[in-house]
Formats: sequence, structure tokens, C-alpha cells
Amino acid sequence: MRSLPKNVRIVEVGPRDGLQNESAIIPTPKKAEFIQLLGTAGLQDIEVASFVHPNRVPQLADADELVRQLELVPNVRYSALVPNMKGLERAIQSGIRRIAVFTAASETFNKKNINMGIQESIDVFKPVVDRALKEGLSVRGYVSTCFVCPYEGPVTKEKVADVAGALFQLGVDEVSIGDTIGAATPRDVETTSGYLLQQFAGHKLAMHFHDTYGMAIANVYQALQMGFMIFDSSAGGLGGCPYAPGASGNLATEDLVYLLDRLGIKSGVSLDLVRRASYFIARELGRDLPSRVLKTA
Amino acid sequence: MRSLPKNVRIVEVGPRDGLQNESAIIPTPKKAEFIQLLGTAGLQDIEVASFVHPNRVPQLADADELVRQLELVPNVRYSALVPNMKGLERAIQSGIRRIAVFTAASETFNKKNINMGIQESIDVFKPVVDRALKEGLSVRGYVSTCFVCPYEGPVTKEKVADVAGALFQLGVDEVSIGDTIGAATPRDVETTSGYLLQQFAGHKLAMHFHDTYGMAIANVYQALQMGFMIFDSSAGGLGGCPYAPGASGNLATEDLVYLLDRLGIKSGVSLDLVRRASYFIARELGRDLPSRVLKTA
Repeated sequence: MRSLPKNVRIVEVGPRDGLQNESAIIPTPKKAEFIQLLGTAGLQDIEVASFVHPNRVPQLADADELVRQLELVPNVRYSALVPNMKGLERAIQSGIRRIAVFTAASETFNKKNINMGIQESIDVFKPVVDRALKEGLSVRGYVSTCFVCPYEGPVTKEKVADVAGALFQLGVDEVSIGDTIGAATPRDVETTSGYLLQQFAGHKLAMHFHDTYGMAIANVYQALQMGFMIFDSSAGGLGGCPYAPGASGNLATEDLVYLLDRLGIKSGVSLDLVRRASYFIARELGRDLPSRVLKTA
Repeated sequence: MRSLPKNVRIVEVGPRDGLQNESAIIPTPKKAEFIQLLGTAGLQDIEVASFVHPNRVPQLADADELVRQLELVPNVRYSALVPNMKGLERAIQSGIRRIAVFTAASETFNKKNINMGIQESIDVFKPVVDRALKEGLSVRGYVSTCFVCPYEGPVTKEKVADVAGALFQLGVDEVSIGDTIGAATPRDVETTSGYLLQQFAGHKLAMHFHDTYGMAIANVYQALQMGFMIFDSSAGGLGGCPYAPGASGNLATEDLVYLLDRLGIKSGVSLDLVRRASYFIARELGRDLPSRVLKTA
């Protein structure tokens, strides 16, 4: 048997990546309560908001106010997505100490998603990351469509490594490798993520899987066997897939924690308390969340 | 990379294991239509009915009539569960050519499930299998709770091997290794199924995973890497988990076929046509089925 890591860090993206893809708009105090429940559940890294233009993502338009309302749980790192210098200014104003910048490994996807080519987005983010680091903020990078692009099909591992490398060059301390449409299989993880491990330190790479086709846990297990130790997930599996209405989006935090618990890998997260957070937000959304584990007694 | 099998045989258990755990009772002609859709989708091994006492599983009380109504698709093997000699008589009368007998790797589970100890159930099945083989029928065996028992907790690999061995001794040609409550992780599959591979021929062992906690696809991928080539699944993920109301039960055939297709492993099954069968039965049940792939566009 291949050895598995003893500890894993989970980056909870439900309040941002999750709620961004839900149709309902949650009132700011309810979001703050949800985030507090996640923090007390032991999630030490929570992406809470996005400083994109409020018109672009109405679900997250209250980012400034939300960050100010957060009751901070000790030892929890809160972060927010930032698309440009204007977003960074808002982030700094809000008091958040960690931001995330984002691009894709597919030109077509990036153009459709953020209306910029990949190199253009790197150019836009360069002064943003510079400024953020000067202000003492830390910066995470996201790469979308690292395995399959909904427009271009399979994405090469070399392209993913190029884009991840460009983000590290900017000064991000961690790059999240996203399977945006959830089409990756463990074999793709072996190929692409394995290639990334040859270029970059594994402890600076997060795996961000979506469960659209039910592959996410298999991909996590594959990545664990390869030594990866950072995984993005979303409480309850919050957030649909914008490319497949009604389908699942993010890997559910509960399903991830269940796997880790059963494998004896420490995450510091209480499954029971994450479930409580998920039930809370499910009530607010008025819908069942797709997590398998959440549905068990 | 470890090599994967080129071909996999799927045993579709939706009409039996699936419908048995749905609360709605489907009219016999609709079941027959569902089974025909599955056969035309390329599923070559379909468990269609159960000859347990009609009062025990009202959902499947029409087994005799259903088997008679089936419009047989060429090259499809139809089978039915048989609990005792009386059930075998009904099975023979119905004209079905393959039966399945079943026990568990946990004493407590077996007693609660079929009111017999494991050895007692083997003793009961001995004359049943003898008679079935004499009549020219073929026989499959099921072992439930091969990884975790809802009453006893973890089950040892030696116990599973003992019970599987006892079934092979009876004359069954294949044993299905069931993760009844869906609690197994790939590591458990590596341990227990790996041990079974040391004792029995891999092509006589089917892996029967449940997706209660979202682990099924990860377990399938682990088993594929170990060389297993027979998997049980249920169209749409039909069938809940009797130990966790509202939760998922069987691995969904669509999710399995999606994985196999993406890995380039042939199953002979058309994903589109299985989805049609699942939509059909979902309409009859009046509920959404849990398959992830079924929810995608």
C-alpha cells in the first residue's frame, strides 16, 4: 500500500465558490453565521467572499459588509477572491488578510469566464499581487479547467504547469488546481497532478475537485496517494455546476472529511459540526444539498 | 501507472436491489418495460426479481408474473434472488435461468436480515443450489457486509473469505462482495478484496459497492487497479439505504459507466440509453434518483 499523508488541510470554499453558484441570495448576517459555524467546525481556511464587481455576481455583492460583520474565530484564515486592482482596494478596506487571484488553463474558458486571455490575466494580476504582498496580505492562485475544458476538451499537463508556474512567479504561496467541470478521473489526476509534482512543491498545490460526475472522492484518494495534502471543498457540496444546471458542483466537505476520518488522516474538522453548518445554509437556501454524507442519519 | 482491465462486466441490480429499497410499488408491466430498456442499453446481466416470500418484500411480490412478462433481449442474462427451496420452485416455474443466493459476513447482520446464522444459511442453500444446478440453472452468491457491519463494525477479511469460500463450495459460479452500508474506503478494498484475490480467481468475484457516503466510485477505481472486472450497480442509483433513510444506496450504473468510458474500459453499455431507462423509472417512482451523472445535461 502506498503511504498516505498524516494530515490534510481543507480549504472551505462554500461561502464563495458555493454560494456564487446558488440562485438564492443569502442575507449578509446569515452568511456571517454560516461562516462562523464553519470556523467552529474546525475549518481553518475559509474563502468567504469575492470582490468582483457586485453586478457580476449578485449573490456575493455584499462582500465588503460581510467581511466587516464576520466574528473571527481564532486560528481561522479568511480569504476573498479579487479580480483586479479595484477589487484589491475593496479587499484591503474590508480588512481581509488573504486574497485569491484566478485564471484558467484554457484560453477559451478564460475568455468566456473573465473576458481575458491567460497571459492578459497574469499581466492584470501582477500589480495586484505586488500591491497585496506589500500590504502584508498573502495570496492564493486558482487555475480553472486543469483537466478538461467545456469548450476545448482535454487540457494538457504542460499548459497547466505553465499557468501554475506563472502564478507562482507572481508571488502566490499556493496554487489551487481546479477540475472545473468535474470530468477528471483518477487517471487524469495521476497524469496532470503527477506532472505538477515534478515542477512544484506538493505542499504548495491544492486539489480542487468538482463532483459533477461523482468522480471527486476517487480523485482525492488518488491525490492522497500521490502525497497531496491540501484540498478545496464546499460544505454540503454547496454550489451547482454552471455548465450543467441541477448537477453537483464542488466536492462536499462532509464527503471529504468522511474519507479522511475513515483513512485516519487528521483534518481538524468535526464532521458533525460541518453538517450543522450545512443544514443551516440548506435551510436558508431552501434546498437539499448534494453531499452524500449529509443525507445519512 | 497500474494497468486497468480492458473490459468490465456490469451486473445491473436496479430492478431487484434497487426497487426493493424504494417505497413505491411499480406495476409489473412498467417493471418489464424498465428491464427491457436496461437490456437494450447494453446491460447483459440483469437481476430482475426476488422470490422471497411476497409479504417480506411487497415491492417485488410480482416476481413470478414479471419474469413471465419479460420480453427477452438476446444475449442478456436475467437472474433472480432465491431465499430457499420454495423460492427456487417459483423461480424454476417462472422460467428464469439464473438464480442468486445470499448470506453475510456478519452473524448479527445475517440474523437480523434473514433470521439465520451464516452457517445455517449455507446449510439452507446447499440443497437449493444442488437442485438449481441439476435443473441446469446457474447460481450466483452474495455476501453482504464484507467491510463494515452496521451492528458489529469492521468485518475481518478472513471472515469474508470463509463465507465466499463456503458459497463457492456450494457451486456458485460467482460471488458478489457487498459493501452493504457503503462505509468501505479504497484502503478497505485494497485490504479485503486483495486478500480475496489470494484465495479465489478474480474473474469469479464481483464488487458490489454502495454510495451511501460517496465512496463507491473511489472503491471501483481501486478495484479496477487490482484487476477486478465485474461490478454490480443500479440504474440511476435506484434504491435507498435501509440503514439511513433518504441516503443513497447502490452505486449508480451511470456513474460507473461514466468512469469506465473515461478510462477507455469497455462495458458494452450505452450511457445515454441507461439514462433513458433511469428517467423512465424515476418518473414511475415520482422521485429524483441520486446518480450524479444522471443530473448532468
